[in-house]
Amino acid sequence: MNIVKKELLYEGKAKKIYKTDDENTLYVVYKDSATAFNGEKKAEISGKGRLNNEISSLIFKHLHAKGINNHFIERISETEQLIKKVTIVPLEVVVRNVVAGSMSKRLGIPEGTELEQPIIEFYYKDDALGDPLITEDHIWLLKAATPEQVETIKSITKTVNEELQTIFDDCHVRLIDFKLEFGLDADGQVLLADEISPDTCRLWDKDTNEKLDKDLFRRNLGSLTDAYEEIFKRLGGIHHV
Amino acid sequence: MNIVKKELLYEGKAKKIYKTDDENTLYVVYKDSATAFNGEKKAEISGKGRLNNEISSLIFKHLHAKGINNHFIERISETEQLIKKVTIVPLEVVVRNVVAGSMSKRLGIPEGTELEQPIIEFYYKDDALGDPLITEDHIWLLKAATPEQVETIKSITKTVNEELQTIFDDCHVRLIDFKLEFGLDADGQVLLADEISPDTCRLWDKDTNEKLDKDLFRRNLGSLTDAYEEIFKRLGGIHHV
Repeated sequence: MNIVKKELLYEGKAKKIYKTDDENTLYVVYKDSATAFNGEKKAEISGKGRLNNEISSLIFKHLHAKGINNHFIERISETEQLIKKVTIVPLEVVVRNVVAGSMSKRLGIPEGTELEQPIIEFYYKDDALGDPLITEDHIWLLKAATPEQVETIKSITKTVNEELQTIFDDCHVRLIDFKLEFGLDADGQVLLADEISPDTCRLWDKDTNEKLDKDLFRRNLGSLTDAYEEIFKRLGGIHHV
Repeated sequence: MNIVKKELLYEGKAKKIYKTDDENTLYVVYKDSATAFNGEKKAEISGKGRLNNEISSLIFKHLHAKGINNHFIERISETEQLIKKVTIVPLEVVVRNVVAGSMSKRLGIPEGTELEQPIIEFYYKDDALGDPLITEDHIWLLKAATPEQVETIKSITKTVNEELQTIFDDCHVRLIDFKLEFGLDADGQVLLADEISPDTCRLWDKDTNEKLDKDLFRRNLGSLTDAYEEIFKRLGGIHHV
């Protein structure tokens, strides 16, 4: 594709998003910024942008191949990709296969407890409110999404969970939980969006339960880029130069 | 009824519960203690126990008359009542007709916003965890209640909301929100339990929106007992001596 990057549309915590000369295509640059606890903890970590762009590109491409439509168009460089323009649904959709993080704290259940069934949670995407957990009634009240959109989101989310579990199982990694975001394309269709990377998943080594995700940064447990590089390597990633 | 009060079974923030010589009957003494914010704010407020016992007795009696089974047996004195023994379901069931309190903070919606439909929320009754908002999936995970029990709870809750709205509307009070608790009786049947009082409801004067509930204590807005006395008076309560 011969797409020309235009003006900056939005700068988030981990990515910059630019317009292009095609109105339905956006240009994403992954940054090296790491943030946690709603932006309270911050750092620049060299290599993080590259690794998340590479890992997310691999995963979204794989999901396309498995018939799961998503916003990813193509990888442009180590830190850049093209995506379809969507209007983001203001929900963080969290899937949990094993109890960890905020669920462990909220419910008083030890980290590492296996769930019999995956659980889907919705958080309202609003930094000022601290992205609170919400119920479906709250979704309707906030007009964050329609009941039909939520049904579609749940259905895609379950399929993504199955695919991701297979991908990570194949590289000896436990998929503990992850966060998805969705958007509405120009036709109003729900499309998987944002990124899928060790920033948005909890990934534990299958034998040692060693953490290979952003909890290393959140909890000061070790090198984030070593872990992300390990995930990239296990996923079969190669450095395109 | 000729029931003999026996040993203390449980002392909560607002009530003491005693065994009786009947194994299915408990003896409740309402205390003058006021607590808020999960026990962080505390005070002794003379008359509060009496008013909550009187108001809750009136309301539960009324609900019985309307065919809504509940744990209330009879008022014994100004501060005492008899109830059926139940095993409390560890859920706080909150009904909201108008946005206020934690819902306003969580969702960033101004207090006083009318809801088109009442919203039912479940909080996990656990002081150590701060009674967190939970989803139905969390209820199953915590084994706090079965799906059938939750359906029964929701159905009773909707009927109670209609009855309470009528009662308070008749005395010129807006029922903003309220909290219910449920128990399982000896046969495993779901029964409305706990209390219904200005401690567990948000009640605003219909003309002035003056608060006539525990928010007066939470937010240091004025005399709690004056407001509770006003609610008792409007409900047609009389002092039994």
